[in-house]
Amino acid sequence: MAKFITIGERLSTTAPTVNKAFLARDPEPILARAKAQLDAGATYLDVNIGPAEGYGEDLMKWAVQLLQSNFDNVPLALDTSNKAAIEAGISVYNRSKGKPIVNSADAAGRIENIDLAAANDAIVIALCNGEGIAADNDERMGYCTTLLERGLSLGLSEDDIWFDPLFVVIKGMQDKQMDVLHFIGDLTAMGLKTTGGLSNNSNGMPKHIRPIMDSAMVAMAMMMGMTSAIVNPNDLRLMETIKSCDIIRNDTLYADSYLEV
Amino acid sequence: MAKFITIGERLSTTAPTVNKAFLARDPEPILARAKAQLDAGATYLDVNIGPAEGYGEDLMKWAVQLLQSNFDNVPLALDTSNKAAIEAGISVYNRSKGKPIVNSADAAGRIENIDLAAANDAIVIALCNGEGIAADNDERMGYCTTLLERGLSLGLSEDDIWFDPLFVVIKGMQDKQMDVLHFIGDLTAMGLKTTGGLSNNSNGMPKHIRPIMDSAMVAMAMMMGMTSAIVNPNDLRLMETIKSCDIIRNDTLYADSYLEV
Repeated sequence: MAKFITIGERLSTTAPTVNKAFLARDPEPILARAKAQLDAGATYLDVNIGPAEGYGEDLMKWAVQLLQSNFDNVPLALDTSNKAAIEAGISVYNRSKGKPIVNSADAAGRIENIDLAAANDAIVIALCNGEGIAADNDERMGYCTTLLERGLSLGLSEDDIWFDPLFVVIKGMQDKQMDVLHFIGDLTAMGLKTTGGLSNNSNGMPKHIRPIMDSAMVAMAMMMGMTSAIVNPNDLRLMETIKSCDIIRNDTLYADSYLEV
Repeated sequence: MAKFITIGERLSTTAPTVNKAFLARDPEPILARAKAQLDAGATYLDVNIGPAEGYGEDLMKWAVQLLQSNFDNVPLALDTSNKAAIEAGISVYNRSKGKPIVNSADAAGRIENIDLAAANDAIVIALCNGEGIAADNDERMGYCTTLLERGLSLGLSEDDIWFDPLFVVIKGMQDKQMDVLHFIGDLTAMGLKTTGGLSNNSNGMPKHIRPIMDSAMVAMAMMMGMTSAIVNPNDLRLMETIKSCDIIRNDTLYADSYLEV
């Protein structure tokens, strides 16, 4: 297997600093957050510009070029409900360090992002849900099958469809956590790749607990074969855990310095 | 499932302070280490007196009575190759907080500890090895079957045989780690209980790395259904991880204060 892929989540309009910098086309706050994530070991950076109606194409192009020109063509996940903005971003994207990721498709209103990824030779994150959170793994697998069949029929490689089981919040859905993890195991057994917004599980928990819970969750998910996650790479404990699980899975070779790499 | 059971490993003759206190029958160092482990959340305490030829019976009785009288009949694992010492310990053991654990039997020279546990209505840790470390999971399963059949034939409940897959050192056997974890999954699928000296995996690693690696390992093992481990309960990161995995497995109910419980 390959080393676990982390997609850094900190370039998002949900952060007021980032939102302001995107709107003002102010490079400094964006570059600072990008550098912090890459220094901490992020593989990909997610670029979440929100819906960005009317200006998304211009903004995504600006962000892609800014980040790739400053960070040696860092690979990016283009994260917006604005399809034209994703296509605009891809039009200026340099693939030398990895294909762009389309974030994201689902089996309901966003299923056409599968088509968009296929048309642009991109990776796509495929959320295993429809109009709402799936009630159980049978429903999740139904959505997965829909997304997989559509992708394959359009010529996408199954390696380029990264299935997101949708992590659910422990505070409220504690009894569903093992279902999500076993679903990752089901996808792994099918030879499929997996990713997801891991920290959903710890939403609403005290701030000091979240890195602890997220670390436990990522190790359990990696035991089930998970291949990637959308994370805060500046969560040191989480990144230490991911690197340790990569050692245990024999996906990176152990050295006493492995945490510093 | 039930909450994960931790067996505190710090009362061992391998620690010079403990060895000296055992030989001198000096209560203070023993009680201090016992209290530290119980305060940190250990369920059981392991009492490793070494072979203790000639004085093991007296020492084990002394240790059992000392610990149980000071800590409300704390349940104990009696850990020695000296069978007479284990029986002596059991003869004065109070079962109100849990059966004694015989640590340990294997499928070779120590198989009679299965018989000893059966004769004394005790739990037994059953190492899935013979004369050496098993080469693969088929060999591990062979030893498991031998131990299980012997225990059942002598009237032991399968709940009272805790199988130890034997964790192996990453530095040297990195490519065997997933085998051990999948073997735990095989035992879980058979409805069997599991335990083990988890920190074997990180032997020889720099001191600051061990809690990080051990935490990753215990989370992956708990994903495979592991029910217990022999640990240093004063490794805060490890205990936080175990408590978090108990939440994810839905074995304890989440509360914002769960780490303090």
